[in-house]
Amino acid sequence: NDPWAVFDNNASGGVSNNWAAQPEGTETGKTSSNAWHSGGHVHPQAYQGADIYPYPCLIDLSGAEDDEWDEEWDDVKSSGGYAESEAGEGGAINRGGAHGSSMKIALNKFPGFSKSGPELYLLSKQPAKGTKLPVYGGEVGPVWAYPDYQLDCVVADPKKGSKMYGLKSYIEYQVTPTTTNKPVNHRYKHFDWLYERLLDKFGSAIPIPCLPDKQVTGRFEEEFIKMRMERLQGWMSRMCRHPVISSSEVFQLFLSYKDEKDWKTGKRKAEKDETVGVMIFSTIEPEGLPDLDLTEVEQKCEQFNRFTRAMDDGVKDLLTVGNEHWKRCTGPLPKEYQRIGKAFQNLSSVFTSSGYEGEAALTDALTAAGKTYEDIAQMVAEQPKKDLHFLMETNNEYRGLLGCFPDTIGVHKAAIEKVKEGDKLVATGKITTSEKTAMSKRASTMSYALQAEMNHFHSNRIY
Amino acid sequence: NDPWAVFDNNASGGVSNNWAAQPEGTETGKTSSNAWHSGGHVHPQAYQGADIYPYPCLIDLSGAEDDEWDEEWDDVKSSGGYAESEAGEGGAINRGGAHGSSMKIALNKFPGFSKSGPELYLLSKQPAKGTKLPVYGGEVGPVWAYPDYQLDCVVADPKKGSKMYGLKSYIEYQVTPTTTNKPVNHRYKHFDWLYERLLDKFGSAIPIPCLPDKQVTGRFEEEFIKMRMERLQGWMSRMCRHPVISSSEVFQLFLSYKDEKDWKTGKRKAEKDETVGVMIFSTIEPEGLPDLDLTEVEQKCEQFNRFTRAMDDGVKDLLTVGNEHWKRCTGPLPKEYQRIGKAFQNLSSVFTSSGYEGEAALTDALTAAGKTYEDIAQMVAEQPKKDLHFLMETNNEYRGLLGCFPDTIGVHKAAIEKVKEGDKLVATGKITTSEKTAMSKRASTMSYALQAEMNHFHSNRIY
Repeated sequence: NDPWAVFDNNASGGVSNNWAAQPEGTETGKTSSNAWHSGGHVHPQAYQGADIYPYPCLIDLSGAEDDEWDEEWDDVKSSGGYAESEAGEGGAINRGGAHGSSMKIALNKFPGFSKSGPELYLLSKQPAKGTKLPVYGGEVGPVWAYPDYQLDCVVADPKKGSKMYGLKSYIEYQVTPTTTNKPVNHRYKHFDWLYERLLDKFGSAIPIPCLPDKQVTGRFEEEFIKMRMERLQGWMSRMCRHPVISSSEVFQLFLSYKDEKDWKTGKRKAEKDETVGVMIFSTIEPEGLPDLDLTEVEQKCEQFNRFTRAMDDGVKDLLTVGNEHWKRCTGPLPKEYQRIGKAFQNLSSVFTSSGYEGEAALTDALTAAGKTYEDIAQMVAEQPKKDLHFLMETNNEYRGLLGCFPDTIGVHKAAIEKVKEGDKLVATGKITTSEKTAMSKRASTMSYALQAEMNHFHSNRIY
Repeated sequence: NDPWAVFDNNASGGVSNNWAAQPEGTETGKTSSNAWHSGGHVHPQAYQGADIYPYPCLIDLSGAEDDEWDEEWDDVKSSGGYAESEAGEGGAINRGGAHGSSMKIALNKFPGFSKSGPELYLLSKQPAKGTKLPVYGGEVGPVWAYPDYQLDCVVADPKKGSKMYGLKSYIEYQVTPTTTNKPVNHRYKHFDWLYERLLDKFGSAIPIPCLPDKQVTGRFEEEFIKMRMERLQGWMSRMCRHPVISSSEVFQLFLSYKDEKDWKTGKRKAEKDETVGVMIFSTIEPEGLPDLDLTEVEQKCEQFNRFTRAMDDGVKDLLTVGNEHWKRCTGPLPKEYQRIGKAFQNLSSVFTSSGYEGEAALTDALTAAGKTYEDIAQMVAEQPKKDLHFLMETNNEYRGLLGCFPDTIGVHKAAIEKVKEGDKLVATGKITTSEKTAMSKRASTMSYALQAEMNHFHSNRIY
């Protein structure tokens, strides 16, 4: 149940056999399911950002295929939520956390889609629909087309709203893009809607990190809202920095819809978008780049798989030790300094009772030492919020992002296996020779998309 | 089984009844036995000074009445000792530690002595023998006669010696008094002999802290010898600072014997000293101080009991938290910093494998951060030896000293009870009226000795 096992299977030659033998389940679907049900157990996710217990990346699996909004998602709870949160205080809350490092690729959005996998694109006869996504040869290799002006936005000013005559309340965030500088309001469920659209549309080519925690309220509502806002800000900034996502129609709609009508119209249009799933590759156009042969395509794919897998391990390791350090710095360590401080002050008050003259110099010094230890306790307890917090947030975000790679890479892997079957498919009359040639070319296009995406990932990671 | 319970019993009036009902056992003997068998369990004594596991104050009960030297006491072990030490590494070694905070008052050194207790002095008809010990009225109350020049000595230069044709080896320390500046050599067993003499002679009036650990060798012989030497130095300095002890014949002999013959002669003489046990009070002479009535004597005694008991609790508390802090700073905390350091460096080496250009700035920074965390780990692990060590050593010494107070105070308490019985003893014809008057006066003398000793203790503690 290792989400990174794609290439391990390949090493023993098991994947292509499985794929042929199990036409009902695509590799992608399988990997996706693995990613949802593994990880998280080895690396406890009890990192407690700023006094609350966030579930860094929680997906409600039961509602994954439910088109209805769950109106409770971002409702502010006043009793149930608190009790739940308190119950979890004693230990690391892991509920749902195990599913956190993956995304849902909507392969079964269309009838028959789940049975076809990447060949829907590889063997597609339809002309590409929608905006073209060029890939250029840059200094570091294939790159997306970057805009001259990098978009960003500010998520701020969370406000409590209510509906149903005040029976239900929710939080609305103000989102202001740096381009228009005109704020729009969005509830958490709108962010989630955007996430679903981006996942549907780009998820096969671009890892879309899932949104910060859902449905959970902390002990301190304000702290919780603040942290969710910070994480929504982080998520939005990452989306803004992505040249493909930030220039997409649905993302632009989210950031700069004019009015309610504009929003509703745009929403309906986005939901009807047919260039989703693997069909996104049909819009990708490598500019002035030679077709890659399958060996190179496979090599690149394996390289990225190895790297993202190793980085995922590294990030989780850092999160694990960071989490332990967080717990030590906010728990036993300051408690110990406090006890040392109390011991000094206690000795000081014992000495005061001696009745001996000239105690003051000693007892004053002991009391001061004791109080200093108590100050140290407080400093130690508060330090993690000032530095470790940012290390944890960044790595937590990366864990979420890295958790999407097995799915994305799985799509490529499945495509490679399909192309490898080309000769057999021609021989059995299932495809024509020109279809086989087209498949190879399209696998090359997919590889350019993957390479552009990896270079984007590296660039974002470093600069 | 609380060594400090003397006055708790008194509160319920139980002590004098017990004393009358159990003529076979004196209060002192009882308290002494309590002190040996209590404490230490609540406060773990696992403080690990400088890499070894000292038993801060270990008394070999089985040999308490044995006049023969145990030649093994200070022998350097080469196999058994190591195995023992290693076996204890896993947890806090407490063997013997529970008996550490007491001293052995040689009440049964003479036939019938154990049955008589402090009344041996209170009802003594013999003239006082030996040097007089004056008590003066000082600024802070009754004080001992302090010498103009304060004696001190240096314990240094431990050397391995051997005997029985090299079959047995031992460590000899060089002891140099600041007065003569002429070094003398002493083995641990000589220190122990001195301790026994001081305990016999002064133990009823002056708490004699027991010697540092016996019979235990650490994993690193040199570390162990160094620590034992430091503690012998601390013990000797404390004895030197005491005006009564430092001016005593036996102590002077130890510090400045001329040759082997001088030492042997002095040894024999000291062992024949008859002014031991409670008879030391017969040499005490309050100068120009009025006789105290029993109420005041009792009040002072209770005050000192309360104070030393409270200080003992405070010191043990500080030792407990200090010990925990020591363990944390030398165990889990640096281990955690090391793991954080490794996680950073691991991420750095993952990034190096990305194949992306321009990684160096990031990977260099990550590696440097990782190494810095490893440096922090080492600093944290080594800091306790540089500061906490001295706090622990001082408090450990005080714990040993404070552990002697129940015995010393017990002698006074028993004397007070005896004086309280005065009228009854006169009525039953056991003592005369003038003997009763003498008892009261002597109880006053004892109180001046106790007050002088407490003032010495306070002064030493503060300055």
